[in-house]
Amino acid sequence: MNFREVFHNFGLLLVVLSLILGITAAWSALGVGQGDPAEKQALLALLLSAGAGLTAGGLLYLPTRSATRVLGRREALLLVALGWLVSAALGALPFYLWAHLDGDPRPHPFDAFVNCYFEAMSGFTTTGATVLSKIASMPRSLLLWRALTHWLGGLGIVVLFVAVLPSLGVGGKRLFRMEAPGPEKEGVRPHIRETARILWLIYLGLTITQAVALRLAGMGWFDAVCHTFATLATGGFSTSDTSIGGYDSVAIDIIIIVFMVAAGVNFGLYYQLIRGRVRQVLQDGELRGYLTILLLGSLFVVVFLHGHTLQTTDGRLHDGSPARAALHGTFQAVSVQTTTGFCTADFNQWPLLARGVMILLMFIGASAGSTGGGIKVIRILICLKVLASEIERVFRPNVVRPVKFGAHPVDADLKLATLAYVLGILVLFLLGAGLLLALEAPQDIDFATAISASVATLCNIGPGLGMVGAVENYGWFTAGSKIVMCLLMALGRLEIFAIAVLFFPRFWRGD
Amino acid sequence: MNFREVFHNFGLLLVVLSLILGITAAWSALGVGQGDPAEKQALLALLLSAGAGLTAGGLLYLPTRSATRVLGRREALLLVALGWLVSAALGALPFYLWAHLDGDPRPHPFDAFVNCYFEAMSGFTTTGATVLSKIASMPRSLLLWRALTHWLGGLGIVVLFVAVLPSLGVGGKRLFRMEAPGPEKEGVRPHIRETARILWLIYLGLTITQAVALRLAGMGWFDAVCHTFATLATGGFSTSDTSIGGYDSVAIDIIIIVFMVAAGVNFGLYYQLIRGRVRQVLQDGELRGYLTILLLGSLFVVVFLHGHTLQTTDGRLHDGSPARAALHGTFQAVSVQTTTGFCTADFNQWPLLARGVMILLMFIGASAGSTGGGIKVIRILICLKVLASEIERVFRPNVVRPVKFGAHPVDADLKLATLAYVLGILVLFLLGAGLLLALEAPQDIDFATAISASVATLCNIGPGLGMVGAVENYGWFTAGSKIVMCLLMALGRLEIFAIAVLFFPRFWRGD
Repeated sequence: MNFREVFHNFGLLLVVLSLILGITAAWSALGVGQGDPAEKQALLALLLSAGAGLTAGGLLYLPTRSATRVLGRREALLLVALGWLVSAALGALPFYLWAHLDGDPRPHPFDAFVNCYFEAMSGFTTTGATVLSKIASMPRSLLLWRALTHWLGGLGIVVLFVAVLPSLGVGGKRLFRMEAPGPEKEGVRPHIRETARILWLIYLGLTITQAVALRLAGMGWFDAVCHTFATLATGGFSTSDTSIGGYDSVAIDIIIIVFMVAAGVNFGLYYQLIRGRVRQVLQDGELRGYLTILLLGSLFVVVFLHGHTLQTTDGRLHDGSPARAALHGTFQAVSVQTTTGFCTADFNQWPLLARGVMILLMFIGASAGSTGGGIKVIRILICLKVLASEIERVFRPNVVRPVKFGAHPVDADLKLATLAYVLGILVLFLLGAGLLLALEAPQDIDFATAISASVATLCNIGPGLGMVGAVENYGWFTAGSKIVMCLLMALGRLEIFAIAVLFFPRFWRGD
Repeated sequence: MNFREVFHNFGLLLVVLSLILGITAAWSALGVGQGDPAEKQALLALLLSAGAGLTAGGLLYLPTRSATRVLGRREALLLVALGWLVSAALGALPFYLWAHLDGDPRPHPFDAFVNCYFEAMSGFTTTGATVLSKIASMPRSLLLWRALTHWLGGLGIVVLFVAVLPSLGVGGKRLFRMEAPGPEKEGVRPHIRETARILWLIYLGLTITQAVALRLAGMGWFDAVCHTFATLATGGFSTSDTSIGGYDSVAIDIIIIVFMVAAGVNFGLYYQLIRGRVRQVLQDGELRGYLTILLLGSLFVVVFLHGHTLQTTDGRLHDGSPARAALHGTFQAVSVQTTTGFCTADFNQWPLLARGVMILLMFIGASAGSTGGGIKVIRILICLKVLASEIERVFRPNVVRPVKFGAHPVDADLKLATLAYVLGILVLFLLGAGLLLALEAPQDIDFATAISASVATLCNIGPGLGMVGAVENYGWFTAGSKIVMCLLMALGRLEIFAIAVLFFPRFWRGD
């Protein structure tokens, strides 16, 4: 293992992140109400964090300048793992420092570093699970940083790094393939830096469009920008304690539904669209599958919900009119399948069948190459095709019918890898739920809470059922459970491998 | 599809089953208290059923005597599917006729045919889920028939048929491979009839040994024989309302634990043992895995249970002494992993963690080639090895390390088939739980009930959690749910394929 090369690049990554922390601090210094002492403390916390990050990054980067510039496979994996596990610590620092700088003697969730780390990891992995109960009382600059962690993590911290920094050559391609979600890891362009830049440009374009749309629908600029970051990254952090439900605006709900759906589409398809290949996009197998599942899932939830009393996240009760069932059912189904996790209604109170469909949608998730999490639609479709072909093989063993996806046959390696991935997710899900049950044994949590907390963190959704429902938070878990869930979030976001290899002794021993 | 050949063999199978029904009737006529009117009605019901079966079987068999005697692959599949789905109807007939012959105006679960069919399917598939609440009040001859369905289904109705009837040649081998559980379908002997006979002889030997042991431990002959049938088939039907807990005998508990473990071992290993190949048996990878999981599972359950008050199935409360926790924890862990489903204690009241381990053990199940159900240990082991090799491939793509099981490398087809099987079970489990939630929506059952009923029927265990717990029964489900669970039981027992192909139009269309 060439640690020198890993540390060199990792140092650079910390510097980039610190600069973004600095920009947030600058915005805070210029923009927000300077009379507010909490904002001043937040500004100081951001500046101190940026300074700490710059120092640590510089200390890693400068002494390793003589590194070879060749990033091997194992080095790339380690860099991605470090990039996520350690960057979350830097991302958590402003929260932690702020809680200790403010003179308030009352306890705050951010007094404990594990809570800050959970929040930052939940941000970067675009999960959106929070430990906070009083979000609206936080300084605005910290809320902006919290939303920014989503936005940066959405396309990938390392992809950002590939986009803005001198080319890493084949190493950059390796990084991209390890971080980008989904089984087809070919970039949209042969040059990986160009790919990363195009993806970020598309992302930026969508961001501006949604922020303007939300502003026009009546949201303030600050909230509009923060919610846009959280939507397009399929994150889910809100600046309000009542998530989207508090705005009570059909226009806002619909705008967010549209952009959640857009964020769950393979970003490569937007590039095709820009190049005018409309027909190719419309015939994309995964896009069709994704939209079909979204439609069917929403339809099922709406039907099961119809006629039931509905409580929005602001606590108000509504009768089960078809229009309300349609709006909130669609919003929540889209929110969980795209793995965003915004809420307008407390779906924990919904009929069991509606909740069952929601759990299923959580596992399925969004498209490969999108910012969304979950197993991904393309893998679900490949699995179903493999299952059908295995059954057919029982009664027609001599008929070789290749499993195809679109026009391309799926080769044996990809079939096995896909099935192994899905099983791996299920094993991690069970392991996660089991560990949560074990670690929370004294509190005696229920099955629904343990199961949904495991899938909601592993698949990067955010809210679950029971004690982690739409109007609850993750603050009450023990520190051990929070560390387990941080690992689940990272495993889910990086599609298992970059984190899982760290537990293999052979990975460290070298070839 | 050569229906002629299928019907010919199926007719013969019905005749065999009818003869066994006749034997049960003969035992009833000779043995049991003839003064009891309920026993007389049961005798009549058994005789009528045997007559009906003989007639139907004869009408299928005789006109098709000119059949070709060549059983193709699709014909063998259809015969196995028919053999299980329709034989359960013949097995249900005595229950149904008895409930309608007896003059008792009070309602009885067996008044509805769907309940009788559920009970018979649960018997043949060795699930052991019952619709009855007052088992002890049933006529003894019907209880014997109920236990016999387990015993016949344990090694396989069709294997029995292969063993006793004129050789079917390659067709017999096909039947055997489709019905015997587990991925390695090679018989212990090259001639399939010989294999089937040896397996039945071993089964018979175990049966006699256990029945004598239970008798010596103080159980009456009738109960000893019925419980032996239910143990060795990993079924779980008891002749008592309190299952094994009512005997309150440590000796009986231990005898049943030992024979449940024995029933979950690959029967091929007993043949090796008889031939003196002790070392080969001790080095068997699946046997070691099976015993390790049994030990660890029991250990976890016992540890989580320790110190908790414990209620045995007869309703008595006990303090959580280490000895009691060890006995009941081990009994229940072994009972669910071997997929038997006998109960000494109401594990539905156990701590969440103990229940979590039990659910996991239900999925894992027993060994391939045993009478037990579940995914099977060998498949779990292969899956884990494939997952590890897929992770290693990420950082060492050029090192080809074949996945091995024992000394044999697992080929690509078997890897894919195994992963597909496990995923198939999980998909069916989810589908089953979803359908139960949907069909029971008016009753609003809880997640634990729906989930555990789905796994307990699909993996052929019997009791689950919540409303299908150790001291509950399946009688309260709607008819629709019972049909779904009958399908799950058959799918689980026949390892999906023989039933799943029936839903493929291409299966019926021919080549």
